[in-house]
Amino acid sequence: MPINQQIVLDNRPVGDAVASNFKLISSPAPQLKDGEVLVKHHYLSLDPYMRGRMNDSKSYAAAQALGEVMIGGTVGEVVESKSAKYAVGDKVVGMGGWQEYSVASDSVVGVLRKVPDESVTQIPLSAYLGSVGMPGVTAWYGLVKICQPKAGETVCVTAASGAVGSAVGVLAKARGCRVVGIAGGKDKCDYVVNELGFDACIDYKEHTDGKALSKALKEAAPNGIDCYFENVGGWIMDTVLLRMNAFGRMAICGMIAGYNGAPMPLANPALILINRLKVEGFIVSEHMEVWPEALQELGTLVATKKLKARESIASGIASAPEAFLGLLKGKNFGKQLVKMN
Amino acid sequence: MPINQQIVLDNRPVGDAVASNFKLISSPAPQLKDGEVLVKHHYLSLDPYMRGRMNDSKSYAAAQALGEVMIGGTVGEVVESKSAKYAVGDKVVGMGGWQEYSVASDSVVGVLRKVPDESVTQIPLSAYLGSVGMPGVTAWYGLVKICQPKAGETVCVTAASGAVGSAVGVLAKARGCRVVGIAGGKDKCDYVVNELGFDACIDYKEHTDGKALSKALKEAAPNGIDCYFENVGGWIMDTVLLRMNAFGRMAICGMIAGYNGAPMPLANPALILINRLKVEGFIVSEHMEVWPEALQELGTLVATKKLKARESIASGIASAPEAFLGLLKGKNFGKQLVKMN
Repeated sequence: MPINQQIVLDNRPVGDAVASNFKLISSPAPQLKDGEVLVKHHYLSLDPYMRGRMNDSKSYAAAQALGEVMIGGTVGEVVESKSAKYAVGDKVVGMGGWQEYSVASDSVVGVLRKVPDESVTQIPLSAYLGSVGMPGVTAWYGLVKICQPKAGETVCVTAASGAVGSAVGVLAKARGCRVVGIAGGKDKCDYVVNELGFDACIDYKEHTDGKALSKALKEAAPNGIDCYFENVGGWIMDTVLLRMNAFGRMAICGMIAGYNGAPMPLANPALILINRLKVEGFIVSEHMEVWPEALQELGTLVATKKLKARESIASGIASAPEAFLGLLKGKNFGKQLVKMN
Repeated sequence: MPINQQIVLDNRPVGDAVASNFKLISSPAPQLKDGEVLVKHHYLSLDPYMRGRMNDSKSYAAAQALGEVMIGGTVGEVVESKSAKYAVGDKVVGMGGWQEYSVASDSVVGVLRKVPDESVTQIPLSAYLGSVGMPGVTAWYGLVKICQPKAGETVCVTAASGAVGSAVGVLAKARGCRVVGIAGGKDKCDYVVNELGFDACIDYKEHTDGKALSKALKEAAPNGIDCYFENVGGWIMDTVLLRMNAFGRMAICGMIAGYNGAPMPLANPALILINRLKVEGFIVSEHMEVWPEALQELGTLVATKKLKARESIASGIASAPEAFLGLLKGKNFGKQLVKMN
């Protein structure tokens, strides 16, 4: 019976989330019932949405319960099985949470999904938590279904080096668009342009106010912006909004800047009218119907090395809280994962 | 040769528009060329969009030129004709501007539109500037094409007693919705409920902050709000946003509060994400394809007295500036018109 290290939510953040909101506990992995499998996690995914769950306020999803294992996407391997559907050794993607092992029942549809071996697909297991998983499909839905970019249009995406942003850019390039990223730091911008093939990337740490960012945007997107994939909110969103073309489309996805409870107004919503914009918020898990089509395209882009997603990998479940707090502050470079020891 | 009294834009507003931004001038009506008609205006329409045109800033339409007659919709009668398409006595709708007479050429499509006599249709001439004109089609497009309300859903509209708001409510009732208006003053709210048939109307002059308005909205819309037709912006929009249901739709039309140049931020745009809202700005003149269908329904609602639109009628072209400034402050009750002497 393996020992399972777990991270639970111990108390809720007041303002910024801090490490002491979490607690590391250990317990033996439970006995399996019929139809259940024990999954040993290889990677845990850390994502901005988790910050929202830490609050007790009304949101699109239930709050994370205190004292329970933090939710989170995982990839791993079946190590014990009382299910006819899964064999020991199967690679699986699921929502195993912030822990080393999880138990899943094969009777709940969608809880666990078998994925083929990397040797067959050229897709590494960790990619199912990023480009070929929830963040990738988020990019696909917001870009393809909400923004609906046409060849020749200009697409702008914030958090451009991240798991979602990188996929947005590569998907937009594949559709013949000019793609402008916004990211924090020269390294991230270099990666976005040189490895992902964006046409330009603006470093918001170099252009630190609306005026400077606006000028940089004007140079990077001389024909204005038709599609905006919004991941951060705040002053960057305000500035991009000023550069939107008439009939522009905005997919509202992240707004990280708002998760910590700080007020984050939109300076000039009248621009939605003036430029006849369509602005739409979405949650990818509510659009399961697009997943097969999206994963097909994303998987191909990863396998053919057109989408070379970066990963920031923390080591061991105990490192998850600090890695997560770093993610909220933009310290990660690409998809933030925790690799189990 | 009749004398034509005209109101021109003399100088641009700094902050609030004031009467001295306008100037009354007189000149003889011009000689007609072949293909032209002289229209004697019966009514001039005053609309919030005109405030935007008074600014020199970039917007969806060109700024009103200084020294030229203010633009505006008009209904009137052909009094001289050098066109085979129009006869003296024809009733016509056009964009004649703030003046007593205008000249229109029959070679420019859409400049002038003949309308049938009231005796035939039961639709009074002035209605073509309101319920059966641009404001009515604005209501129709925003509600039917953007909000797409379903029977049983709750629709909220601000400036509910106005030319647009009244039509939004009646169109929504015809679609089986619960309709909640927001208007300023008991008289307006009584009219909205008793004569237009809204289910409820909230007086924002009685509920003067977000907390009070939110409480009133909760009572008037116990199931939350699915569709919001936005005419005013500011704190009222912020408050309504908090009561929107998941997958709600917002048609952004007016934002009067912003026309005078005061900053009018949106307090919590993260709600667009949290509630997966679709927010869309629009200008009705860019959707001419819907006008026939919209005018058909609106005309029927007016002729059958289901849409009993109020009118505030100022007397004589010289009264237009004060009437317009009153409109911007919500002093009008229903569609603001100027009746020519």
